[in-house]
Amino acid sequence: MVPRYTRPEMAAIWSPEERYRIWFEIEALAAEAMAKFGTIPEEAAREIREKGTPRAASIDANAVEEIDAIERVTRHDVIAFLTWMGQGIGESARFMHQGMTSSDVLDTSLAVQMVRAADLLIADVDAVLAALKKRAFEFKFTPTIGRSHGIHAEPTTFGLKLAGHYAEFARNRARLVAARAEVATCAISGPVGTFASTDPRVEEYVAAKLGLTVEPVSTQVIPRDRHAAYFSALAVVASGVERLAVEVRHLQRSEVREAEEYFHAGQKGSSAMPHKRNPVLSENITGIARLVRGYAHPALENVALWHERDISHSSVERVIGPDATIGLDFALMRLAGMIDKLTVYPERMTENLESLGGVVHSQKVLLALTQAGLSREESYAAVQKAAMETWTKLGKGDAKKFRDNLLASPEVAARIDGATLDKVMDPNRDFVNVETIFSRVFG
Amino acid sequence: MVPRYTRPEMAAIWSPEERYRIWFEIEALAAEAMAKFGTIPEEAAREIREKGTPRAASIDANAVEEIDAIERVTRHDVIAFLTWMGQGIGESARFMHQGMTSSDVLDTSLAVQMVRAADLLIADVDAVLAALKKRAFEFKFTPTIGRSHGIHAEPTTFGLKLAGHYAEFARNRARLVAARAEVATCAISGPVGTFASTDPRVEEYVAAKLGLTVEPVSTQVIPRDRHAAYFSALAVVASGVERLAVEVRHLQRSEVREAEEYFHAGQKGSSAMPHKRNPVLSENITGIARLVRGYAHPALENVALWHERDISHSSVERVIGPDATIGLDFALMRLAGMIDKLTVYPERMTENLESLGGVVHSQKVLLALTQAGLSREESYAAVQKAAMETWTKLGKGDAKKFRDNLLASPEVAARIDGATLDKVMDPNRDFVNVETIFSRVFG
Amino acid sequence: MVPRYTRPEMAAIWSPEERYRIWFEIEALAAEAMAKFGTIPEEAAREIREKGTPRAASIDANAVEEIDAIERVTRHDVIAFLTWMGQGIGESARFMHQGMTSSDVLDTSLAVQMVRAADLLIADVDAVLAALKKRAFEFKFTPTIGRSHGIHAEPTTFGLKLAGHYAEFARNRARLVAARAEVATCAISGPVGTFASTDPRVEEYVAAKLGLTVEPVSTQVIPRDRHAAYFSALAVVASGVERLAVEVRHLQRSEVREAEEYFHAGQKGSSAMPHKRNPVLSENITGIARLVRGYAHPALENVALWHERDISHSSVERVIGPDATIGLDFALMRLAGMIDKLTVYPERMTENLESLGGVVHSQKVLLALTQAGLSREESYAAVQKAAMETWTKLGKGDAKKFRDNLLASPEVAARIDGATLDKVMDPNRDFVNVETIFSRVFG
Amino acid sequence: MVPRYTRPEMAAIWSPEERYRIWFEIEALAAEAMAKFGTIPEEAAREIREKGTPRAASIDANAVEEIDAIERVTRHDVIAFLTWMGQGIGESARFMHQGMTSSDVLDTSLAVQMVRAADLLIADVDAVLAALKKRAFEFKFTPTIGRSHGIHAEPTTFGLKLAGHYAEFARNRARLVAARAEVATCAISGPVGTFASTDPRVEEYVAAKLGLTVEPVSTQVIPRDRHAAYFSALAVVASGVERLAVEVRHLQRSEVREAEEYFHAGQKGSSAMPHKRNPVLSENITGIARLVRGYAHPALENVALWHERDISHSSVERVIGPDATIGLDFALMRLAGMIDKLTVYPERMTENLESLGGVVHSQKVLLALTQAGLSREESYAAVQKAAMETWTKLGKGDAKKFRDNLLASPEVAARIDGATLDKVMDPNRDFVNVETIFSRVFG
Repeated sequence: MVPRYTRPEMAAIWSPEERYRIWFEIEALAAEAMAKFGTIPEEAAREIREKGTPRAASIDANAVEEIDAIERVTRHDVIAFLTWMGQGIGESARFMHQGMTSSDVLDTSLAVQMVRAADLLIADVDAVLAALKKRAFEFKFTPTIGRSHGIHAEPTTFGLKLAGHYAEFARNRARLVAARAEVATCAISGPVGTFASTDPRVEEYVAAKLGLTVEPVSTQVIPRDRHAAYFSALAVVASGVERLAVEVRHLQRSEVREAEEYFHAGQKGSSAMPHKRNPVLSENITGIARLVRGYAHPALENVALWHERDISHSSVERVIGPDATIGLDFALMRLAGMIDKLTVYPERMTENLESLGGVVHSQKVLLALTQAGLSREESYAAVQKAAMETWTKLGKGDAKKFRDNLLASPEVAARIDGATLDKVMDPNRDFVNVETIFSRVFG
Repeated sequence: MVPRYTRPEMAAIWSPEERYRIWFEIEALAAEAMAKFGTIPEEAAREIREKGTPRAASIDANAVEEIDAIERVTRHDVIAFLTWMGQGIGESARFMHQGMTSSDVLDTSLAVQMVRAADLLIADVDAVLAALKKRAFEFKFTPTIGRSHGIHAEPTTFGLKLAGHYAEFARNRARLVAARAEVATCAISGPVGTFASTDPRVEEYVAAKLGLTVEPVSTQVIPRDRHAAYFSALAVVASGVERLAVEVRHLQRSEVREAEEYFHAGQKGSSAMPHKRNPVLSENITGIARLVRGYAHPALENVALWHERDISHSSVERVIGPDATIGLDFALMRLAGMIDKLTVYPERMTENLESLGGVVHSQKVLLALTQAGLSREESYAAVQKAAMETWTKLGKGDAKKFRDNLLASPEVAARIDGATLDKVMDPNRDFVNVETIFSRVFG
Repeated sequence: MVPRYTRPEMAAIWSPEERYRIWFEIEALAAEAMAKFGTIPEEAAREIREKGTPRAASIDANAVEEIDAIERVTRHDVIAFLTWMGQGIGESARFMHQGMTSSDVLDTSLAVQMVRAADLLIADVDAVLAALKKRAFEFKFTPTIGRSHGIHAEPTTFGLKLAGHYAEFARNRARLVAARAEVATCAISGPVGTFASTDPRVEEYVAAKLGLTVEPVSTQVIPRDRHAAYFSALAVVASGVERLAVEVRHLQRSEVREAEEYFHAGQKGSSAMPHKRNPVLSENITGIARLVRGYAHPALENVALWHERDISHSSVERVIGPDATIGLDFALMRLAGMIDKLTVYPERMTENLESLGGVVHSQKVLLALTQAGLSREESYAAVQKAAMETWTKLGKGDAKKFRDNLLASPEVAARIDGATLDKVMDPNRDFVNVETIFSRVFG
Repeated sequence: MVPRYTRPEMAAIWSPEERYRIWFEIEALAAEAMAKFGTIPEEAAREIREKGTPRAASIDANAVEEIDAIERVTRHDVIAFLTWMGQGIGESARFMHQGMTSSDVLDTSLAVQMVRAADLLIADVDAVLAALKKRAFEFKFTPTIGRSHGIHAEPTTFGLKLAGHYAEFARNRARLVAARAEVATCAISGPVGTFASTDPRVEEYVAAKLGLTVEPVSTQVIPRDRHAAYFSALAVVASGVERLAVEVRHLQRSEVREAEEYFHAGQKGSSAMPHKRNPVLSENITGIARLVRGYAHPALENVALWHERDISHSSVERVIGPDATIGLDFALMRLAGMIDKLTVYPERMTENLESLGGVVHSQKVLLALTQAGLSREESYAAVQKAAMETWTKLGKGDAKKFRDNLLASPEVAARIDGATLDKVMDPNRDFVNVETIFSRVFG
């Protein structure tokens, strides 16, 4: 992922240095277990841990380059790493990796990385949830127009809008927790996963120490349906990021101006047009959502590896492992900050709400007419006619025009008088269940 | 979905007739609830149920055409349906759909369909699981070569291969159960979801009757992250179907011939080449897996609807709702039958296993040498050398050539004698943990 | 594809009846060529043509069912078809398909279908182009605000907007023409494509008669990179459909109301809210665009068939062949009609254009200041300050507020007077190059 | 893209330093044109070029950091760059970027980068083509079995296999050339693309100097259907890379062993199993193909920008611009080297070809029987019976078993004798048209 969209916390998980440190931890734990179950000398396991720990801790860019240099000869990354570690550990090094295969290290290491990444993403979602909750309560009863098809429909509150996104992000949190569990498994099962030369108890030991479960059947690799499910979950979360970003973009449109991304002192919206204040953060994360969605497909194609494994998944994961998690991490944190600091214009919301002459109350009039005895079809026709007349000839200051047009209709006037109509069209009627919905969402 | 890949059970869920019947059930339940909570007369709800039930039951192709004809005028499907139903229900019809919006019906109906589809898919996976389990136990100790990168690696058993797929399908079952729960919600919340003209208890009543939960915040629509998660789960399952199908395709290759799809009497493999017996079923479902994967992306793009809703999701769902579930249903059932009847050739497995002169035991020799005191690097070099010599000059009947080449190596011979080597290379050693793995998978 | 999104012209191309008729045409042409080059008796070719033509013409739903019944035994579609045709042709039938393989028929037939589908799609695009051109000239100089990031930027004309879409659809037309050429090839090369038992001149003959070119190397199948390119082109075109649909959806938003989809007499926008007029056509095709995009990926996965061919592509193509072309055909024709009948509100455009107090002219003021000697940075700061003051305190009737604020700024007033400012901010200055752009697009 | 899959030539195109240098070139050329057409002083243009050129040339990591620091205040990348350049250019700097908008620079710069990337990719494909051609002629008449469905079908030659891939890469070359043309356009049209403050001749001048065409209608941005078409073309090419990689993976399978990736001295195939020689290069690029395919979808979603533009495409392109081109460049060059050095085993090809007892000649026998007067159905049945008997009871050394079984069949023996059968089954008959196909492909 490009630096611009990379936060250091997430990048650290995917650095080559950290990757090697995790590899060593797996090898050292495996050695401990092997010693415990009598496969290798206790002394060797102790030396691996004692000499290996400082060496692994010391891994920096230079060390990475040294390991790379070995790999250029062996053309095998794990062997290169073991060779380099062996140079610091000495004799006992030959007891490392006994009966194991590279994938035991690589796949378990990837599991550790994906689990940590999931933990960060869950924390990010918590930040989004906190921002949404704060603002939802702030605007719990702030009237705003609800829109379907981009067309004014009926009043809602700005708090309700945010509560809906909160509910979605609560689901997204649950999906990330499930995705984390999907990949939190450990494999130390040797070539083709038969445990022919390694004891299943070694796997159990390493898994427990790393906070993972054992993979029931690892055919040399941890099966890739797990990773596919993980990246698919990220794609769903990213799509939720996009939904909220698109909402902000709509609200900031010049004709709507109900909310705006915070505009910093010194910020320039456009190189050409000094008047511009653009929703660039939400547009930015809309694009990142597309990226994260795009990473799900290669992960799905990775599932059908050949026989006990092929390595075609590896190049995919070297890229999308970091890119999908870093991209989503960035988008979530940007979103959280954006919501937290969103400039909201309640008066514009009211202005827009009233701008269509009251037609947004058409359903309630329809119901009142039906209940007053007019058939549904006739009621619909009468209300539609009054609404269309209002709509098509709308001028400034016509906030009550729909009411007037309704009363001018004989079908309506015969059944409902002005006072009743005012009661029917009272916007507060729309918010009687806001409390109920909030209690569903926030408990 | 084309008829060729459509099973009637799944198609029935998505027929227009069934869809309308579900719509009626929702409207009738809502009317009952409204009567219960005093919004409409009890009499009306009773009449809607009594006159509506036979009318809904009678919906056939002709009725669908009549409803379509109304829609061509109203350009609105739910209004067309209500009008048609109203013709049979009479007066009380005007109390149907009170305070509701089309999406209340459409989205809850879609939820019912997706839940039923998930139930069928779960049953399909159960059939796959049953077939895999039966065959896994049948071949629990049938030796076969494990392959990584398509290259012979170490021995495994055919039962273990199938157990690995069983474990994956057990995960897929859990994913479908989770996906079912994702979409099993009900919305009867009116325009923009505020319950302005409908009582939340109506929603609770309908949800309970339909076996659904209430949607916490439905902004006119049930939020589409649920559907995206559902179709993503289907994509993961489809990829698991593909993995098993690809395994069969590999096993049936002419050079491998370890297993074959059942070949029917009268079947012709090729119009041109009478000798052909092709793995067409597994190729067929490989393709269907691609389709089902492809349907996930539009579902993800559906999440970011505008404001309280736009209807761009609808055309997508009218197509992928049936297509993804029908396609996956077909693929799963075809897979179950294919595994159940798969012709397996254990003697070919043995033949292939032994065809590389024993080099597939190289790791065990490497470990034995290491334990006998040779460094890992020297051991690796000696074993690789013997293996390469075996490999490159392999003739028929050279099943022991690797052993001979090893004993001809001074580094090896100095540490291990022939008898030890035979013990090291005993294939039974590879299967010592088959029981453990089976108990992990099958309990 | 569901009937709702299916036009009969496109559906006809993909009907089983038509498919069989194309198969016969290929077989009959191949027989003619074989007779010509001496492989089979002239008499046989003549009889195949004479007896086969009426039989093929007679293929209806019943015949399809008969062929299907044969396929249920042979499990091979081409053999089933040949058997059924043979029943009507008699003795000479055995000379059909000599030295050919099923794929020769299937792939050449698919090529014919995809070419015809491309022709229809090209005609559809022509309809879109015609509608866009007509409306572009109609509104060539109709001022409207150009928006970047959804924020008012600078004036443009509604004709220019449409001209931009015209230019894109002109590119899309070229892409479809290229896509058509990609797939317009014929293969009659026998098993694994060696022409071992068929003369390459037969292929040349059939290709020429069908308006196709010969496939240079068909390894039993026509290589699937061609189909992948074809469906990818469809995905690009669909995305262009979406761009225009999204534009209309924005223009129809309640706060913008600059254009509206034609609203039919009798149409109902919402079952609940009689006042609604929703951009449902453009939302509908936005969804269809997602579908068509989604079909490109399975086509790309089809490329890497195994060795000389496997049949995994077939199930994919049976579905996306019709679905992608039918879906796009429907979307294009719906789009053409929608543009053709779009209700446009020039007065609303002007109203919106002036609604921000003139800040949309900020760039021109910036340039004037720079040219009057102020540094770019200072100019930017002065103009931004005046614009922000205008923007944030904007009331009704403040169409000139930006001008006033500029003149109140000492940095500006020192360099530019009111008259100059009026000249600088004259909206007509924005349209001086409309003619140039139109001549680029329309020639 | 991760360094592991990055070649410096392609990376250089996408470096921030190079990006800024291209920006300067565009600004300097635009200034020249503006001077030429009288918008800015000639002197200014000269100074911009003279002082700007060395400053741009000097851009290194430090300069990038300085520009980034400015951007952290302005939150606008182009303004930050202009400010930094202005510090070196002095007074005349204020004449840079006159009447232009950021996108004029950004989009034209991206066009330059994508064109250069396309040029590299085309050169890569040329390397693949050269390797394929060399090896195709080397093995022009090397017999090998053609396989459909992974099952032995009929003989072909290894040269023909490679010729087929050559033909596909020739098409891929043409697609890249077309993709290059798609994006090779220049926009200097100012805010919302009206040329309100810039002369269209400036655009023409810059375009010509940069080897680009002018964008007919750039609504502030170059329309993204161009980029979508470009990345889609890359996806098609990547899928062709995968097809060839999958072929090599199949050929290297232990049971097939007809070809092998070059195995380097010192290389280790497996950390556990010293005998392994794995097709890791082709597996690696199989994965990269999945990545490149995955990048097409976000590019397609980028097309439907809002109104005259939004910036959601930008984050997508910052990532997939480099990632897709770098990934594909790496895969192509790896593929070229792999084919060039592929170890081929003609004797194994013969061995496999003969391994099924001759049934691979079944079609030719079928034809001979048909021509000898037996009906197609009877011929098919007789040949299928003999083939199945051969197949199911196949032992070592049964290379002629099919022939024997045929002669044992009364239906066959009545019509064809052994000598005729030998002629019919002569493998050389399969290659009579190899020359024709080669001349189609290589001219």
